[in-house]
Amino acid sequence: MRATLMYGAGDVRVEDVPDPKIQQPTDAVVRVLLSCVCGSDLWPYGSMPAAEKGRRMGHEFLGVVEDIGPEVSGLGRGDLVVAPFVWADNTCEFCREGLHTSCLNGGRYGSDGVDGGQGEAVRVPQASGTLVKLPVAEDSALLPGLLTLSDVFSTGHHGVVKAGVGPRTAVTVIGDGAVGLSAVLAAERLGAERIILMGRHTDRTDLGREFGATDVVAERGDEGVAKVRELTGGAGTHAVIECVGAEQSMHTALGVVRDGGVVSRLGVSQYTEVPMGFDTLMRNITLTGGAAPARAYIEELLPDVLDGTVEPGRVFDRTVGLADTPEGYRAMAEREALKVLIRP
Amino acid sequence: MRATLMYGAGDVRVEDVPDPKIQQPTDAVVRVLLSCVCGSDLWPYGSMPAAEKGRRMGHEFLGVVEDIGPEVSGLGRGDLVVAPFVWADNTCEFCREGLHTSCLNGGRYGSDGVDGGQGEAVRVPQASGTLVKLPVAEDSALLPGLLTLSDVFSTGHHGVVKAGVGPRTAVTVIGDGAVGLSAVLAAERLGAERIILMGRHTDRTDLGREFGATDVVAERGDEGVAKVRELTGGAGTHAVIECVGAEQSMHTALGVVRDGGVVSRLGVSQYTEVPMGFDTLMRNITLTGGAAPARAYIEELLPDVLDGTVEPGRVFDRTVGLADTPEGYRAMAEREALKVLIRP
Repeated sequence: MRATLMYGAGDVRVEDVPDPKIQQPTDAVVRVLLSCVCGSDLWPYGSMPAAEKGRRMGHEFLGVVEDIGPEVSGLGRGDLVVAPFVWADNTCEFCREGLHTSCLNGGRYGSDGVDGGQGEAVRVPQASGTLVKLPVAEDSALLPGLLTLSDVFSTGHHGVVKAGVGPRTAVTVIGDGAVGLSAVLAAERLGAERIILMGRHTDRTDLGREFGATDVVAERGDEGVAKVRELTGGAGTHAVIECVGAEQSMHTALGVVRDGGVVSRLGVSQYTEVPMGFDTLMRNITLTGGAAPARAYIEELLPDVLDGTVEPGRVFDRTVGLADTPEGYRAMAEREALKVLIRP
Repeated sequence: MRATLMYGAGDVRVEDVPDPKIQQPTDAVVRVLLSCVCGSDLWPYGSMPAAEKGRRMGHEFLGVVEDIGPEVSGLGRGDLVVAPFVWADNTCEFCREGLHTSCLNGGRYGSDGVDGGQGEAVRVPQASGTLVKLPVAEDSALLPGLLTLSDVFSTGHHGVVKAGVGPRTAVTVIGDGAVGLSAVLAAERLGAERIILMGRHTDRTDLGREFGATDVVAERGDEGVAKVRELTGGAGTHAVIECVGAEQSMHTALGVVRDGGVVSRLGVSQYTEVPMGFDTLMRNITLTGGAAPARAYIEELLPDVLDGTVEPGRVFDRTVGLADTPEGYRAMAEREALKVLIRP
């Protein structure tokens, strides 16, 4: 089959790879209907050292079960399923706590002999625990929205849940990428009273407003902090969702969070240290968030996607075929596209 | 009157200072019955540059109201009161959220013309919002326990509340100082299933066991982390209360916290950065805690101190007169004493 590999910064190729086959009795093989490029894929796209052996890419996909191992239950050939961005047994002590990203028997796509999502098919380990059946047809217009349950919308939801967002919460979302916009939508879904979106790409912040942002702050750094403080009577917001991962955006997050408030981080951290010394201690700032256990949220979010209450699939603004995946990376990296769908 | 001043590292003096008088209509003057030395006082005691002008010390005290301004309500001369370690109006938007440490009209003892607690008397601003009446006599044996509501026991309580400790929580407490032992007691009071105390002073950890610690780990650094992990089936504990404030103890905290768990910090941070990069993001670690809004907790904790359910005053193992306060500092700094009471 064909699949996407990254060989270094800016070097994405679609190549022949072995067809996935059942290897463990708990495996399933899924034929991919839809995949996409993640904002987190852009970090290695910008910085990965050149390598002789390509790295299999992609961790968001939905598709049709083609084959299952003898120990897979609850799934059958022909089922349309979505895959959370990590695979997990859904039974270990961490999964039972809703932390599938720390599953004792789980792992990541694209490594250790497991396929990436940006290809024609994927061998999914721990299939019973991982895959969630979707009650729609292969040609459903809802598929892009359902694909966001794999990562981006579940991630936005995780961020706002960890920040304790609810009715009467004011929240600042830092970053107008697909995760940021998903966090806006998730905050709106949970009834946030006020949602300040920090971003400077008008086309994106316009979608953010449609998703529920009540204010948009285009300024960055200290100016951005001052603007959010001005909007909130000087105090900042109780909840801040950091959706970039840069050192600068973490500074901004700590600048706009209200005393006693929560910075919930979703952006893949490009820093190793967080400046949380004496000042944030005295201010009782909480830092939380992390890799979203998407599997834990899908049952809750699915009905709202199915009935159109939320339309998280609107973050996709470009679609490519598998052969054009490298072009999809380029378009996202150059901010021409917000988030790129791949139809193998 | 006489009061304690610090002139530099190791240089604590008891000197004549002006008698406190009502300056604002919201002030009260409190004659101090009991004060004490805080673990946080030991940081400047170890490092303060020599200064010509001494710094007024002490922020924990209880005593008798001697005078009140015309706008003070709910308090009268002769009332026995405890003072939380910051003064606050108890009415602003932060106080209403229980965050008296961020009070818009609050402040700290020992600065801006406000007396420190380690003296014969204190002018307390925002007296109505700050002081809490205690239904005991001046000679009550409960006074040392009640004094801990000012800071150390309220601080321990804050740490475990912010960490979400409750029945079925396993918690690691890092540090066997008075705050650490208070956190053990507070965790036990909230029903923690297991309390692992990390400390290496046997007399202190023995008191920790009496306060509710189920395990004591004397090892430090990587060995300590390994030991806690061994005690918890490899996973660490959901809650970690960091009661030291050193860079090393924060490393230990991040090492013993379970994936998805919470590090709640109480120790005054001697670091400016916390090593919470990619690894802690993937592990969904939360960092919380901070300066305790003691005022918010006193009504809840007071009955248990009054009826002897908890005996937080057991952290005091030495008493000095005001003139011997410098000796009290020395004894605590050299770890001869756990926490020193001052009876002016």
